[in-house]
Amino acid sequence: MSTDLPRRSDIESAAVRLTGKIRRTPLLAVHGEELGVGARVLLKLELTQHTGSFKARGALNSVLTLPEGTRGVVAASGGNHAGALAWAASLAGLDADLFVPASSPTEKIDRIRDYGATAHVVDGYYPDAYEAALEWSDDRPVAYVHAYDRFSTVCGAGSVGLEIEEQASDADLALVACGGGGLYAGTALALRGRTRVVPVEPEKCANLHAGLAAGEPVAIEVGGVAADSLGAATIGSYAYETAAELDTEPVLVSDHSITKARRWLWQRCRVLAEPGAATPLAALMTGAVTVHPGDTVVVVISGGNNPEVP
Amino acid sequence: MSTDLPRRSDIESAAVRLTGKIRRTPLLAVHGEELGVGARVLLKLELTQHTGSFKARGALNSVLTLPEGTRGVVAASGGNHAGALAWAASLAGLDADLFVPASSPTEKIDRIRDYGATAHVVDGYYPDAYEAALEWSDDRPVAYVHAYDRFSTVCGAGSVGLEIEEQASDADLALVACGGGGLYAGTALALRGRTRVVPVEPEKCANLHAGLAAGEPVAIEVGGVAADSLGAATIGSYAYETAAELDTEPVLVSDHSITKARRWLWQRCRVLAEPGAATPLAALMTGAVTVHPGDTVVVVISGGNNPEVP
Ligand SMILES: Cc1ncc(COP(=O)(O)O)c(C=O)c1O
Ligand SMILES: Cc1ncc(COP(=O)(O)O)c(C=O)c1O
Repeated sequence: MSTDLPRRSDIESAAVRLTGKIRRTPLLAVHGEELGVGARVLLKLELTQHTGSFKARGALNSVLTLPEGTRGVVAASGGNHAGALAWAASLAGLDADLFVPASSPTEKIDRIRDYGATAHVVDGYYPDAYEAALEWSDDRPVAYVHAYDRFSTVCGAGSVGLEIEEQASDADLALVACGGGGLYAGTALALRGRTRVVPVEPEKCANLHAGLAAGEPVAIEVGGVAADSLGAATIGSYAYETAAELDTEPVLVSDHSITKARRWLWQRCRVLAEPGAATPLAALMTGAVTVHPGDTVVVVISGGNNPEVP
Repeated sequence: MSTDLPRRSDIESAAVRLTGKIRRTPLLAVHGEELGVGARVLLKLELTQHTGSFKARGALNSVLTLPEGTRGVVAASGGNHAGALAWAASLAGLDADLFVPASSPTEKIDRIRDYGATAHVVDGYYPDAYEAALEWSDDRPVAYVHAYDRFSTVCGAGSVGLEIEEQASDADLALVACGGGGLYAGTALALRGRTRVVPVEPEKCANLHAGLAAGEPVAIEVGGVAADSLGAATIGSYAYETAAELDTEPVLVSDHSITKARRWLWQRCRVLAEPGAATPLAALMTGAVTVHPGDTVVVVISGGNNPEVP
């Protein structure tokens, strides 16, 4: 396998393209002691992004870099990418057709329609929706926009990393959730040589872990509390290559610790993160990632599309 | 009536006292067009403060400036001040006795106890709880800490204003909710001569409006969606004097517009504000306050202690 990884300059171009269209999300400083660590902790509130997750960045960057003549975008997703792509397409005046497995909650389907996109509900699961999306795209002047394993998606997500650098130039470590790995690859490549970026996976969605162990991306069984956002069966090639090249070990956390971190965010900060977005904080709270007194640690709280108050 | 208003230097002293103990809450920049206005809008996310509201500032400043020998603090409140004072007292190693009307939700009473304070549930309404608190305080080495009409409370709340100046030195206007008026008085006095601060009241809790019309604070009937946080019957003397001295007109907003602003904050920003905290945003969204294209407007989102997702 050989994937051309984005360079810092590719991510900088994406960030320029997105300026004024995406939100520059704020950092909330909390005392490390509140979390049981010595470090200074900065929560990047990416749940305040348009569409409630960082996915707006990759989706919009993808939409804004489509070949001339493209009339619409297509994807199979019932999750945050679907809402983000619907939003991005409407900004750009393009059609968006989202293929959603019938197993998705109706609330997510309604959200896609709220952004003015077309939701096609497909019997079965994600692979069936993916199949239907590809078939539908055939012969049409539309582009399939992948949720994480696409150059433009990774570059868009990387703008999170550039913002972290601007907002906390002294950051020693950034922790991000890893599902398909677009967020990890983008931020790690943006901050390469500057700030260490560690991907955090639920034990039950450990596709990067499995891929690195196997020496290539492999499909695994996924499940648990964060599967709706982090449950890609196979790690994306960009994330796999990035972790291999930067020699990065992903950190694993239990479902219990994710739920605890999510509750802490709500009870102590009134930040209502979805489980996937609380995952990197769990790595800090459990000590699964080692930090030193005096370190500055940025934790990306990547989305808030789950209204269940813990 | 003659109330010595805090000077800027009093508020600066409070801010120094609070540094490292309260959170410096972040600003979230949103496009004015999203809200139907030409201005640049910065939401000050004070709901991410300790105890979920700005009340932590005034409570802690009060606790840290008590006379030598004071063993505990007392207040009548079932709301955000109660939780804030319980938290502040526990930080300072003092007892806290909160007198709560039996009409308060049990959830709020539990919160007071969670912070290690004693909740005394008093039959009846706020005036009964107030009576009981004063009676109990008699003969004890404790201090009654008023929720808004106290010098140290106003100075603590004023630290919000100093932060706004540091974070957005170009702000032309700051909008704040007004209940008893501690937040308004503190921020307006902090930013006096620098940034105009406008207090926003629900039509159904218009005690500042009523006071200014009467030429003195007067008790009114209060109600509506934000009464739990903004429903003081009488405007505090600090706020009354501040508005009179600075010649400020409070802005009134309907319950419907408050609910709409609250929904916008959740749906567009994943910020779960309580109704009182969405009140100043309602003034912007309805055009009740006039802003000019190119203006920078800070809107203080003062609390998030209502877990009902709109
Ligand atoms: C809120 C949230 N956080 C993190 C992720 C993981 O992103 P990625 O698939 O790029 O690893 C997702 C993916 O949908 C998400 O929705
Ligand atoms: C969230 C919130 N916002 C605003 C206010 C109003 O503050 P003040 O009483 O100082 O006007 C309160 C008062 O309890 C509050 O709880």
